[in-house]
Amino acid sequence: MGGWALAVHGGAGVDPNLPEERQEEAKRLLTRCLEMGVAALRSKSLSAVDVVELVVRELESDPLFNSGRGSALTAKGTVEMEASIMDGPKRRCGAVSGVSTVKNPISLARLVMDKSPHSYLAFGGAEEFARQQGVEVVDNDYFITEDNLQMLKLAKEANKIVFDYRIPIIGLETCGASAGAEIRDTTSPLQMNGLPISVYAPETVGCVVVDSEGRCAAGTSTGGLMNKMSGRIGDSPLIGAGTYACNICSVSCTGEGEAIIRGTLARDVAAVMEYKGLKLQEAVDWVVNNRLDGGQAGMIAVSSEGEVAYGFNSNAMFRGSATEDGFMEVGIWEST
Amino acid sequence: MGGWALAVHGGAGVDPNLPEERQEEAKRLLTRCLEMGVAALRSKSLSAVDVVELVVRELESDPLFNSGRGSALTAKGTVEMEASIMDGPKRRCGAVSGVSTVKNPISLARLVMDKSPHSYLAFGGAEEFARQQGVEVVDNDYFITEDNLQMLKLAKEANKIVFDYRIPIIGLETCGASAGAEIRDTTSPLQMNGLPISVYAPETVGCVVVDSEGRCAAGTSTGGLMNKMSGRIGDSPLIGAGTYACNICSVSCTGEGEAIIRGTLARDVAAVMEYKGLKLQEAVDWVVNNRLDGGQAGMIAVSSEGEVAYGFNSNAMFRGSATEDGFMEVGIWEST
Repeated sequence: MGGWALAVHGGAGVDPNLPEERQEEAKRLLTRCLEMGVAALRSKSLSAVDVVELVVRELESDPLFNSGRGSALTAKGTVEMEASIMDGPKRRCGAVSGVSTVKNPISLARLVMDKSPHSYLAFGGAEEFARQQGVEVVDNDYFITEDNLQMLKLAKEANKIVFDYRIPIIGLETCGASAGAEIRDTTSPLQMNGLPISVYAPETVGCVVVDSEGRCAAGTSTGGLMNKMSGRIGDSPLIGAGTYACNICSVSCTGEGEAIIRGTLARDVAAVMEYKGLKLQEAVDWVVNNRLDGGQAGMIAVSSEGEVAYGFNSNAMFRGSATEDGFMEVGIWEST
Repeated sequence: MGGWALAVHGGAGVDPNLPEERQEEAKRLLTRCLEMGVAALRSKSLSAVDVVELVVRELESDPLFNSGRGSALTAKGTVEMEASIMDGPKRRCGAVSGVSTVKNPISLARLVMDKSPHSYLAFGGAEEFARQQGVEVVDNDYFITEDNLQMLKLAKEANKIVFDYRIPIIGLETCGASAGAEIRDTTSPLQMNGLPISVYAPETVGCVVVDSEGRCAAGTSTGGLMNKMSGRIGDSPLIGAGTYACNICSVSCTGEGEAIIRGTLARDVAAVMEYKGLKLQEAVDWVVNNRLDGGQAGMIAVSSEGEVAYGFNSNAMFRGSATEDGFMEVGIWEST
């Protein structure tokens, strides 16, 4: 047993021209989250699943990443958030989608796990349950930032394009066949359609924790894709896709949701450990290399033995990790 | 290569006192579905995923099982249906939840896969997409049967109990701690709260197909749990839980949704074949025995080599299967 460990992420795929001050801001937030988790784990005051909820709440409450406040906007300009949480020991889980007024979707997912007869509630039913449970609710406007309004405007001007985290590096992912080439301008990644891009498309947040008793837990929270269709569900709330925890490990993913769903990415990290005998980092590497079929994504993971690992095939991933032996690291690019 | 094969199910868990005529009716429907699939596969006119859609549409259109017309009712007395479909060769997938007016949710899931930039749409957004795509829509009343209205009434009288397929064999699954014992009457399984139970709680439908080119596909469709909370999402629309297909096999599950989600049941059949080298039937048996943690469920599966398998740990499962060599069978109880 290697003691406790935790990792956080703020999304895979980062604008390579992201201003230095935004990078520093992201690193400060990741560090603050790690420190919160470390303090709780060191004091043994909270179990793994409690620490996951605590840390993800912090990420949701800060507008920097795409979850809670700061969530990406739907094509209608609204916020529809989703989240899931899973507790390894009994594989208990809770998830929510289509949440529009709940300040901390991860805590609503936790309540679905603990207080409802179901594992997953969505849209109107999730909002009703939130009110029954008395969680903090706010107006949908609370979640909407100026940066995201600007990015949605760009996305819409760019011909109904579904923005994702790869902007502007790889270019624009198109809904149909018509858009794309004419607005891709790789020589000037900070321009699009003649407009400056000072915003970038941040992604999903997540946290994985193993506590000193070897209990693993994971949580993931997101606003989804910028300019997404209303009603779209991504990988983040889906157990086995964006989030998974069992008695061996816990995993939180981020990136191209549809590829993560097809690859049952989070489950597969645990599956290759369980069924093929891989170690945690080997499992993460194997899954990133073999289960994404060209999709871009990343993940963080911990094992019940106190190991921590991450992997991504995107250009970068906002991430951080800490272990009981005093190790702590935050990073964005391949070589931190 | 063993040629084509297909299997269908109409839910795991059956009232042991189900009248003979209802059993015969179920077997006739399963047989009709198999014959439709066999004809399509024999003529090579449709691919595996097309046959899955065709067969599940038939199951949805008949009110006998819990999907499409005949869906279980929410606590509000409405129908909220969900479905998913997956095409093995490229692991393409589509899913819908919270559908209330779409006559055939499986076909909407297929359209999400083929015509949307996403994999999963729910509630209002799924309904909007249905209208954009011009699928057949009907009033919510179309889905509601007299049997289901009666069963919802019993469920509500029995103190907010979440009915599921285990009624009345195992007893009643309670939402909270207060209900349960006083209304459980195992000596008279056809009575509840002094009222006769002439209705039973049918479950989810599904179909798995491997065509003569070895392509596997799976689809699952359901009305969910009787008296469920509005907004509840079960395993049926979740890729890896209720439905999974890849280049090795395809699987459709039925039963206790929350246990199927925790167990990533459909994915795990493929995972133990892929990672542990198990054959199809061994994989199904292993997963039913090892991944349900006391939950009750069943599944049907085919392999790319033309094998067909099923398994369940509930008292029964409505199912049928057929293979290219002329084998055809339908069954309900453990010994058909």
